Amino acid sequence: MLHANENYLKIKPTYLFAEIAHRVAAHSAANPGAKVIRLGIGDVTEPLAPSVVAAMHKAVDDEAGRANFHGYGPEQGYAFLREKIAEFDFKARDINISADEILVSDGAKCDCGNFQELFAGDVKIAVGDPVYPVYVDTNVMAGRHDIQLMPCTAANGFVPSPDGCTADIVYLCYPNNPTGAVATKNQLQAWVDWANERNALILFDAAYEAFIRTPGIPHSIFECDGAKTCAVEVRSYSKTAGFTGVRCGYTVVPDVLFACTAGGEKIALRGMWTRRQTTKFNGASYITQRGAEAIYTPEGLAETKATVDFYLGNAAIVKDALRGLGYTVTGGDDSPYLWVDVKGDSWAFFDKLLKEANIVTTPGAGFGAAGEGFVRISAFNSRANVLEAVERLKKVL
Amino acid sequence: MLHANENYLKIKPTYLFAEIAHRVAAHSAANPGAKVIRLGIGDVTEPLAPSVVAAMHKAVDDEAGRANFHGYGPEQGYAFLREKIAEFDFKARDINISADEILVSDGAKCDCGNFQELFAGDVKIAVGDPVYPVYVDTNVMAGRHDIQLMPCTAANGFVPSPDGCTADIVYLCYPNNPTGAVATKNQLQAWVDWANERNALILFDAAYEAFIRTPGIPHSIFECDGAKTCAVEVRSYSKTAGFTGVRCGYTVVPDVLFACTAGGEKIALRGMWTRRQTTKFNGASYITQRGAEAIYTPEGLAETKATVDFYLGNAAIVKDALRGLGYTVTGGDDSPYLWVDVKGDSWAFFDKLLKEANIVTTPGAGFGAAGEGFVRISAFNSRANVLEAVERLKKVL
Repeated sequence: MLHANENYLKIKPTYLFAEIAHRVAAHSAANPGAKVIRLGIGDVTEPLAPSVVAAMHKAVDDEAGRANFHGYGPEQGYAFLREKIAEFDFKARDINISADEILVSDGAKCDCGNFQELFAGDVKIAVGDPVYPVYVDTNVMAGRHDIQLMPCTAANGFVPSPDGCTADIVYLCYPNNPTGAVATKNQLQAWVDWANERNALILFDAAYEAFIRTPGIPHSIFECDGAKTCAVEVRSYSKTAGFTGVRCGYTVVPDVLFACTAGGEKIALRGMWTRRQTTKFNGASYITQRGAEAIYTPEGLAETKATVDFYLGNAAIVKDALRGLGYTVTGGDDSPYLWVDVKGDSWAFFDKLLKEANIVTTPGAGFGAAGEGFVRISAFNSRANVLEAVERLKKVL
Repeated sequence: MLHANENYLKIKPTYLFAEIAHRVAAHSAANPGAKVIRLGIGDVTEPLAPSVVAAMHKAVDDEAGRANFHGYGPEQGYAFLREKIAEFDFKARDINISADEILVSDGAKCDCGNFQELFAGDVKIAVGDPVYPVYVDTNVMAGRHDIQLMPCTAANGFVPSPDGCTADIVYLCYPNNPTGAVATKNQLQAWVDWANERNALILFDAAYEAFIRTPGIPHSIFECDGAKTCAVEVRSYSKTAGFTGVRCGYTVVPDVLFACTAGGEKIALRGMWTRRQTTKFNGASYITQRGAEAIYTPEGLAETKATVDFYLGNAAIVKDALRGLGYTVTGGDDSPYLWVDVKGDSWAFFDKLLKEANIVTTPGAGFGAAGEGFVRISAFNSRANVLEAVERLKKVL
């Protein structure tokens, strides 16, 4: 008999975005003239940087002739990209990460989802609540039951403390999705110290790193002392450079990072991840990797920073307006997300804004129990839409 | 403690291509003037079709402006591509597969490797010997021990029979890598009938389908009666259209295909695969998918067929020469691979051709015990290199 992996039956169905789509469709059908503005979306709206576009055209031309044709590339990514990452994302911040410790992929979601494969079925997991569902669902699909939820609330500044955490693997995402909160150096250092003491692993999701503007906020877990012996870091070009449709990210797996067998033998995680990727993955598109390389040119760096600044400008406009209306708002300074305390039920607030202002938000309850009472508002939109949304908010709130 | 997935320690190290690289490097160092011709490679050498190149340039331009910008796409692939696949790869051959049953990915290797996640840890696996190592390694990494090797030999025409097979999941690849053999309709129908009787699953890898020229040889497992209730099919644009560096493939999961729980409840595999892909994957690159769509234009179909014909021409030249020298050769008519009976040790034959003719082949022993006595020769090369290789073969064999 062909027996299914029954762990798939234990995943919570993803009602959130389906339910939002359903309510928006019903509203639009009932109000055919309404101009709906979507502030719930986590996808970018601005085009690729001109430097990236030029590099990708050149890469397509490479594939058009025999002389510069690139077939199968290294599953770990081309050296031309890994060396740029090591230089600009790490060495420029005085972080010692070599190109060999960087493995390029087709996106942070894949890496966040697949990395758990390297560990035994009974390792214990901890995640924040509210949470990006991929961390939880991929562990449930692998049969892991021991998943600790760490509430992220206004009381702890949306950053959980390691005190009392008994997990083997902790997923941390800062700047955070969905709360927009950032973690200080001290907060991250506490997690690193905890992990080194316990031989635990931190999977640090730094997908929103490019949005950090506040001095002193760590851009990488590897700014903390001792992080190389207890952490991997996942990065994404999705929000940094608008690559949501182009697909590229990378994971840093330090040389000195080990898991162990039941018998106590150490196994290097970089070797295991390399084996995973060379067996089940065939590398990111050559054209995509050439585009990613162009982000690190002087023009590319300036262009991508300008786009992130634009989104941060959107966030500031909405944040100012909501604060002026008396709301407590987290995020937006170093993140594209605002986490708004709606002083009540998050779906009720969602419905009110949809019905009275034709504005779509994301109810916090959809990200976990501790998200109830909040909505997530994203900065990914045109300036005109953001300004119009703010006018509407002022009328109905 | 952070316990590793110890199944990774049970995978056989991939000595084959590392050992080939080592021997070729040593030979080149000892013979610095030698012009080595690589006939061992499974990667394409010809550039992308002009239609594909034009479509990818246009897609890059789409990403360069706000009006046609594409961010996150459907994880299952864009409808514009899935509908072309349904029409040209299936309806044109009178096979009833809907666009909804087609899930686009970043390549056949990923799909072949990931599909086993949908099944219980104790399902029994069967694969051919010699074999594409991904089928075996990904199951070993998931902790499966019961992996039956079915010898593919001259006696069975390199197509195993289902008689006596007790597996729950069978991996079949035709046209075959590495033997270049094809399976007849009757041979595949026997597997389909066996699978339906036993409630087993066939994972049919049709990566080399575009090379089939012999009338009557099935291009798809779904040409067999009843295949939709027992088979998934993986397709690749890597060899069809030279996409090894561009990354695109797809998997067909029919609506009527089910696994079951231990309690006997049926679970649709399409729903499970969709859940797997939406949780752990973020879709293939938009630019890549626009390139794949262009394969199905009249120009794209003609251009990609011409390139495959060119490779088949290479294969015919080498096959004729080897047969003229008294060798028994399988493959090459409907496949880019020749499987040459070397009447002796495959590594010794490899060494002889490397040392005496500066030609690199792939020893069959590297693909499994039943591959001993054979070498794989690939047709992916320039015509000039192929003609020169043939002259060298005539001198030393």
